[in-house]
Amino acid sequence: MTTPLYLTGDKAKLDAFVDQFDVFLFDCDGVLWSGDHVFPRVPDVISMLRRKNKRLIFVTNNSTKSRRDYKQKFDAVGIVADEDEVFGSSYSAAVYINRILKLSPPKNKVFVLGESGVEQELDSEGVPHCGGTDSRLRREMTPEDYKSIADGTILDDGVAVVLTGLDFHPSYLKYALGMAYVRRGATFLATNVDSTLPSAGSLFPGAGAMSAPLVQAAGKQPLALGKPSQAMMDAIEGKFHFDRKKACMVGDRLNTDIQFGIEGDLGGTLCVLTGVSKKEEFLAAGASVVPTAYVDQLGDLCTQ
Amino acid sequence: MTTPLYLTGDKAKLDAFVDQFDVFLFDCDGVLWSGDHVFPRVPDVISMLRRKNKRLIFVTNNSTKSRRDYKQKFDAVGIVADEDEVFGSSYSAAVYINRILKLSPPKNKVFVLGESGVEQELDSEGVPHCGGTDSRLRREMTPEDYKSIADGTILDDGVAVVLTGLDFHPSYLKYALGMAYVRRGATFLATNVDSTLPSAGSLFPGAGAMSAPLVQAAGKQPLALGKPSQAMMDAIEGKFHFDRKKACMVGDRLNTDIQFGIEGDLGGTLCVLTGVSKKEEFLAAGASVVPTAYVDQLGDLCTQ
Repeated sequence: MTTPLYLTGDKAKLDAFVDQFDVFLFDCDGVLWSGDHVFPRVPDVISMLRRKNKRLIFVTNNSTKSRRDYKQKFDAVGIVADEDEVFGSSYSAAVYINRILKLSPPKNKVFVLGESGVEQELDSEGVPHCGGTDSRLRREMTPEDYKSIADGTILDDGVAVVLTGLDFHPSYLKYALGMAYVRRGATFLATNVDSTLPSAGSLFPGAGAMSAPLVQAAGKQPLALGKPSQAMMDAIEGKFHFDRKKACMVGDRLNTDIQFGIEGDLGGTLCVLTGVSKKEEFLAAGASVVPTAYVDQLGDLCTQ
Repeated sequence: MTTPLYLTGDKAKLDAFVDQFDVFLFDCDGVLWSGDHVFPRVPDVISMLRRKNKRLIFVTNNSTKSRRDYKQKFDAVGIVADEDEVFGSSYSAAVYINRILKLSPPKNKVFVLGESGVEQELDSEGVPHCGGTDSRLRREMTPEDYKSIADGTILDDGVAVVLTGLDFHPSYLKYALGMAYVRRGATFLATNVDSTLPSAGSLFPGAGAMSAPLVQAAGKQPLALGKPSQAMMDAIEGKFHFDRKKACMVGDRLNTDIQFGIEGDLGGTLCVLTGVSKKEEFLAAGASVVPTAYVDQLGDLCTQ
């Protein structure tokens, strides 16, 4: 395992690194921003890469936002980006369900544990769904609910898939329904399984954590469609058509972003230290996931 | 490993089995009842054992109910039982915190993820607590919450323990707060870690499932104080003073109830088939947890 290059402050190394690639895949949370806080000089780095005619793709495991939501966020924080450049785990899941599973009516509905980002992307692929942001599912369980879940009368026979994302509105009823569908044989998918969500400079429960009740209660692991799943890489390549050897994955998490780039056989990976992983993790002897290079923060790529 | 005795329908074997023991420890959910449905002849079995002067102890991992709540449930379903005969995982946790951890003010508060059963038992042991059924924690997270959790200003410096039980009212805010306390070094305890809860003849998410977001997000396992933790057996023996060799654990789950009895070196274990575990699991070659005997249902002990 070669030691990763440390690029911060070294203009020659930085330029040489950037010049190797035609395509940059960026993770967003922990790389561009943390919650509502944009890291220093990130808009400048993005503009610099565009001036150099690099293709930019924003690859996010955050399932709560659709590509349209992301576009609004990019606009709000002053980063130039196009909706079409965003590839989220919700979109990845919707594409997988629509184009790979190819379900037929009447059993083609998705029971969602997640936010509107998931629903919007399912809509964009024409996949029918229930659960999700339906506020009626945020109520208390009644004794009747236990019975009608147990005997199946409350369940929708059209449900063929349970899809979990990051749900900020968990309820016992939602978990119980999701568990019942999985036990009845529904295909179990997850937009992503990150255990934590970086925000406000700290860590909060991620999609993997919020779907853990369902995983544990149903005793079954979902197929995850976010990073590092190569189903997502294949879908990105299928959409954008690029030479993997000329592409670099930029991220803050070794076990999702960097592993995603390595398993996808990209030309390089760049780790930033503004998110989850610490440099001690990949500099340690015997580290299993090591990026090609690292910088303290993405803004360090700006050498002007 | 010896094959377990099948007792249903065999009066001589049943009487001989019962006569070996002075003390019966009963699991409740899945043994006496499933949700609000009491299994046939359970009140008769309890009365029969009392006539034979057996000591009865009801050992439950259900953390949502206090011993007082349980007494009301026993009364409502027509089973003669005393509040003092009930030993729940919430009580076990409260005893552990008060008598083993022996926290001193000002850092002696417990942040609860669970229902009033946990709070009542903490109160009964004089342990201060927060979180729990506080309805203010069921609200949405605001951007300010992310900041005040990240910088710690919303956190209670008196919190020394995070205790999770079965929470029917999960919220992202509660999980985020629990995660922050664990990350700050709070002792992480669980009343129990059962993945499922039997009810209405089916299975629903259990305490282990509902606390899984916290476990996964914090990256730390709690010390569980319910079955099969021997901390609970020691506490039961400390309270009731009995000869373990003359005691029998009755339960429906191999990996909690039966294991609890075996690890506790009790004289016997009796598995009932009205709950989670199936007989195929312990009759299989190489089964790791095998009861001394089993019956189809607890009512089968009634031979009159």
